[in-house]
Parts: sequence; C-alpha cells; structure tokens
Amino acid sequence: MSNVGSFKIIESTLREGEQFANAFFSTEKKIEIAKALDAVGVDYLELTSPAASEQSFNDCKAIVALGLKARIVTHIRCHMNDARLAVQTGVDGVHVVIGTSSYLREFSHGKSMEYIKKTAIEVITYIKSQGLEVRFSTEDSFRSDLVDLLDIYQTVDRLGVNRVGIADTVGCANPRQVYDLVKTLRSVVKCEIECHFHDDTGCAIANAYTALEAGATHIDTSVLGIGERNGIPALGGFLARMYVSDRDYVLNKYDVKAIRQVENIVAEAVEIAVPFNNYITGYCAFTHKAGIHAKAILNNPSTYEILRPEDFGMSRYVSIGHRLTGWNAVKNRIEQLQLNDLTDEDAKKITNKIKQLADVKALTLEQIDVLLREYNHAKCRMISYFPLLLTEQASLFSKL
Amino acid sequence: MSNVGSFKIIESTLREGEQFANAFFSTEKKIEIAKALDAVGVDYLELTSPAASEQSFNDCKAIVALGLKARIVTHIRCHMNDARLAVQTGVDGVHVVIGTSSYLREFSHGKSMEYIKKTAIEVITYIKSQGLEVRFSTEDSFRSDLVDLLDIYQTVDRLGVNRVGIADTVGCANPRQVYDLVKTLRSVVKCEIECHFHDDTGCAIANAYTALEAGATHIDTSVLGIGERNGIPALGGFLARMYVSDRDYVLNKYDVKAIRQVENIVAEAVEIAVPFNNYITGYCAFTHKAGIHAKAILNNPSTYEILRPEDFGMSRYVSIGHRLTGWNAVKNRIEQLQLNDLTDEDAKKITNKIKQLADVKALTLEQIDVLLREYNHAKCRMISYFPLLLTEQASLFSKL
Repeated sequence: MSNVGSFKIIESTLREGEQFANAFFSTEKKIEIAKALDAVGVDYLELTSPAASEQSFNDCKAIVALGLKARIVTHIRCHMNDARLAVQTGVDGVHVVIGTSSYLREFSHGKSMEYIKKTAIEVITYIKSQGLEVRFSTEDSFRSDLVDLLDIYQTVDRLGVNRVGIADTVGCANPRQVYDLVKTLRSVVKCEIECHFHDDTGCAIANAYTALEAGATHIDTSVLGIGERNGIPALGGFLARMYVSDRDYVLNKYDVKAIRQVENIVAEAVEIAVPFNNYITGYCAFTHKAGIHAKAILNNPSTYEILRPEDFGMSRYVSIGHRLTGWNAVKNRIEQLQLNDLTDEDAKKITNKIKQLADVKALTLEQIDVLLREYNHAKCRMISYFPLLLTEQASLFSKL
Repeated sequence: MSNVGSFKIIESTLREGEQFANAFFSTEKKIEIAKALDAVGVDYLELTSPAASEQSFNDCKAIVALGLKARIVTHIRCHMNDARLAVQTGVDGVHVVIGTSSYLREFSHGKSMEYIKKTAIEVITYIKSQGLEVRFSTEDSFRSDLVDLLDIYQTVDRLGVNRVGIADTVGCANPRQVYDLVKTLRSVVKCEIECHFHDDTGCAIANAYTALEAGATHIDTSVLGIGERNGIPALGGFLARMYVSDRDYVLNKYDVKAIRQVENIVAEAVEIAVPFNNYITGYCAFTHKAGIHAKAILNNPSTYEILRPEDFGMSRYVSIGHRLTGWNAVKNRIEQLQLNDLTDEDAKKITNKIKQLADVKALTLEQIDVLLREYNHAKCRMISYFPLLLTEQASLFSKL
C-alpha cells in the first residue's frame, strides 16, 4: 500500500507559488524556473490557469513549447470555459478543482453537491475526449462531508480520471487524520491519488509523507514552499524527508544537488531570503555546535546526521569557538592544522581557555587558529603559553 | 490517552537554542528572553548545562533569581559532577540525558547499557535526594533498540523520576513511528512523557502533535525553532498547531499575542530574519491572493483561515493588484473606499483592467485606489473611463 518508495512530484511553483504574496513572474522568469525544475527531475509542472489572465494563457503555451521532460499540467476551476482554454494551450493534462466543504459551498461558489457532480462529469468527459490527462480534486477536503467526498471521487473514478486529489486548503489536517482519509479513499478508487497540503500549522511535509504511507501516489510541492499564506511543502524539505525513507529512490530519480539552484532563482524572483532554517540549504542545516555532538560527528557523521551533506552538494561545518565546545572538536582542528606536537592534554587545556574566552565573546575560526598556532609555537619554545595569554590577552585578541 | 488538550511546554531557547550556530547569548540577553517567554506563559524554561562554562553556571543562578512563574530546569549529561553543579544553581529541576543508540554508544560516549543504567540510577537518586524534579531522557531514541529503551525507562520510572524523555536527535522520525513508540512507552511507565523533535526532515511539529495524541505530556520548543542544525518545533508554530485542535486550552493558558515580541528579541540577538513563511508572524501568514480565495475570505474568513489573525494580534490582508485577482475582492475595496456609485458591473470591468495591467507589472494598493477613484470620478461625469485609460495609460501610470 505504501508509496514511500515510488511517489511522483507535482511541482506547483508556477501555480500555487504564483499565489504567494510576492510572486509576480514574467514569462521569462517562468521559463527559467520551469527549466531549473526540469533539471531537478520533477515529474510534473503545474501552471496557473489560462483563464486567470491573457498572459497566463500565453505562459502555458510558452512552457509547453519548451519540450521539457516533465509533464505540463494546468490547474482550472471546474468550468467548461476554463477547460476549453486549458485544452487550447497544448498542456499534457488538466487539473480540475472545486470546493466541497460546507464553508466553500456556502461562502464561495454557492453550488450544491448535485451541481458539483453534474459539472464535474461534463468537464472531465470533455477533457478526456481531447485525449488529455485529467485530475479531479476537491478543495478543503478535510472539512468536507466524508460521504459527499467518497461519492464524488467514486463517480469521477468511474468516469476514468487519471487521478483524484485531496487538498488541505486551509492547513488544518494532522497526520493521523490524513492517513485515515487517504486509506479510506484508496479502498474506494482505482486511480492515482494526489495530495496537496498547506503548512499553516506545521504539518505539510509530515502529512505528505503519511499520505504516501496510506497509498497516495503524487505530492504537490513548491520551491521554498511558496504559496497562499505560508505555503505548501517545500520541494527540498519534502525530498529530505523522502531521502531518509528511501535514499536510493530519491537519488536515482531526482538531482537533489540542483535544488539549491532553483531555490536561488525563485528567492531572487520573489524577493525573499532563503530562511535560516530551510531544509538542506539553510545555512545551518549541516552545522554542529554542542561539544557532545561535534565529538561524535567527527567519529562518525551518522551519529548526528540523517542527511549526508555531500549527497546534496553541501558541506558539514563543526563550530568550535563558543562556550559549548568540547575538546574532541578542538583536537580535530589541531589535526587539520597539522600541529602535531600538541597532545590530548594540550587540547583539553586549550578547550578550557576557549570556553573562558567565549564566555565573554564568541570566537571566529580564525581566532581559534591563532590561539592554536601560538600555543603550539610557545610549546615548541618550551614556554608556558597561558600565563602569557592571561596577562596579554587583551592585546593579543585586539590583533585578531 | 490524548493530551492534545492538556499539554505543557518546555521552552528550550536558552538550551537547545544556544546550540544554534549564531547564538551567543549574554547574561542580560538570556534574562530578557527568559522574561519574554514567561510573559507567553510557557510552563518550563530549560537552560544550558552549568557544566558547559563558568558563565553558563552563573546564568542558571541569575535566571533562577528572577522568580519567574515558569519552572526552571537545566539540561545535563548523565554524570554526577554535572548533577552536583546543577543542584548548586538552585534550579527547580534537572533534565538528565544520555545517548542510547548504537551510533552514540559506539562513536560518542562508548558506554554499555549496563553502565548507562548504573550511572542513571546514581544520578537520579542523588537529584531526588536534593528535592528536585528530575527528568531522564535518552538521546537518538528512534535509532535505539526498543527493548533497551523500555528497560531503562521502566527502571527510572520505578526510581520515581517525574518524567522520561524521548528525543529524535537527528530528525529522522515520522509521525506514525512516533505514535507507536509513545503509545508503547505510555503502557510501560506511569510518569510524564516529554518529547524532543528535530526538524531536519520537516516533521518536528507534526511529530510533537502526534506524540501528544499517543499520550505524551510535555513538548520541547524554541523561539523560531532555533537549535542544532535547523532546529526543533518553533514555539509559535507548535501553538498554531495546538490552537487548531483546542483553541480554548491554548488561548486560556498562553498569551499567544506575546509570541511576536519574543521572536523579535531572539531574531535580533542571533542576527537572523524572521523567515517569510514563519508560522503566525511570517509576513504572508494572513495574506490572501487568488481571486477565488479572496472572494470567500471576504464572505467568511473561516473559509480559508484556520487561525484567526486577531487572536494572535495580527491582521488579515487581501491582495488585489495582480493577475490572479477576482472581482469580489475589487468590489470589497470599492466599498472600503465608499465609492457608492460603482456597481457590480463596474467592479467586473475594473477587474479585467487590473488583470491586463498586472500582466505587465503588479499594482500596489495605492495604484488600485487611484484607478478606482478615477473610474468613479469619470462615471459621475458621465465619461467613459477606459478609453481614456487605454490611450493615456502610460502617462496616468507614470504619475502613480
């Protein structure tokens, strides 16, 4: 049942991502992003509806014309007019969506389930008649009536849709709820199951993973997670999660070293900084600080690392110039500097000194290196170094 | 079994957070952060081990001396020396930790399970004899042998620890795995269960939530999630998750409007920007953009919002100057501007114009307002506005 080792990615930076507050993509920028995503090897690119504006229509055609490896789909409301426009753009498939929760039926489109079903049948039949792939998704699925949901999914499955979609449009779902709904749906339909999760309450990636465990087949992502409000699963974060569960599948299918490039393109285009805590590429994702961590990491990176930085084109950094440092990390730096006269005892003494100094102010790696070299130099000349340092500490460190 | 409506928060910005690459807190800054966290109403403040450095020891004493409402605990290695230092600081409780995974036993401390158990008994007995609260946690629990884990947890439970801790030190755990382990542990020990999750693969908040469903009682958080590598559950993100499940519990117990203040203090202290997609306080958390979303939000915010911005001292923003806009959002702006002569038909015409203009360049709200006022003015003077706009568009918009 689990598709943890056989999922597909529907990359929605050019649809969901365009709904991010700061996103105003030109055609050229969309093309640049589409190519960079294709380099990562995502399975699908989802584009803004051609009904949104004239430029949106033309952008669909422009991206189709690129002839990328990824399949190109566009995301439309469940309307015949939108469906006809979508077909005209030459996309490989059409993603149809309609709100089924009581909230959306009352306050958004105001349609009954009867009407939704009737329209869905008309739209799906038309898209299929044009030889295109078709997905039918409900919106706000986790606040929809379960019987209504299963009824409409079963109906469209029998019509022969390629895929049904579940969407946590408001970001309220939690993993066990996701597992239950997807598992139930899996027993009702034969087609593929796509899941779309918003991250308002911090569960988007975990929900995506759990949906795959329950039998979902396709997951929606966007670069850096951009989308409405605070967005959806970040492409990089989702792949980090999947890598932990099936490293071979991820590394054989996707070029995870290309994630950083597309993140930089998108971050610049929407004028945001890559968050400090971004998965994989955030600047501290592979930085180790506490002495107890640093020691073990130096012995065997698997102790405190579940992702190998080199697989993602990143590198590890062990921070040592602070009060939480440990002597094993200092010893490792001594070895890197080839200060072969320094013993473990020396490393311990220097570590205590670093802790004292760092209680006043954090030290840079350069400052640590000066400290180590000076200690080594003093030792070679049979001079006690620390008394010197203690009395002349201020002047020494002012030079650094 | 579920504690979704009765959890406690162990706020670890001053311990886990100090392990964040950029964190070098002065005593004054620690005190400022401690007070700001106390204002939020977190249940515990966890502090860096007094054994880390002399300043760390003094900082524990300084924070204890503040007399905050939160209980003060410090986090030590499972060593008698560390335990004695901890007791000397005057904290309310001591958090003891030791690595139990084969990785950590081989590559970190090199101790056997026999040794771990023997030391744990000695350290716990001592801390209890001093009348302090005590928690015993394993490290890297999800890669430890289950029988070893349950054995040691049962042993310390019988010794009378207040709490046992599970730690996903490397960020590899997923929600269903967490549920199973916590549920099993719940059946083995009588004491409280604390959980600590790292976010390397995007599951930290979801894992915390799922742990509470399975019977955990305490969750570790930090401000903005700072910690080793990319950190642990953010205090704000965790509370957003819990708010969705039990709004009354969260709002009655915690002052969620005070989250923003402590985030700003910490972000400045560690020299990071609050991420664009931060839970609750990220600048787009309550921004709605797509026309279909904006329409429904204006009818009833619950359609696309699971968190009420006003509960968190935030406000909603509906973005309209872009190609994805819809006429209901434009109509809403017309009403806000009290341009009462404009009809629904006018709003639709203006919306089409905004889409055309936004295909070239996104419009600011000021530009939209000028457009609406000029259209209204022209209408009152019985002039057709758009021909004017089309011919003089460049000059008009160059004035904006």
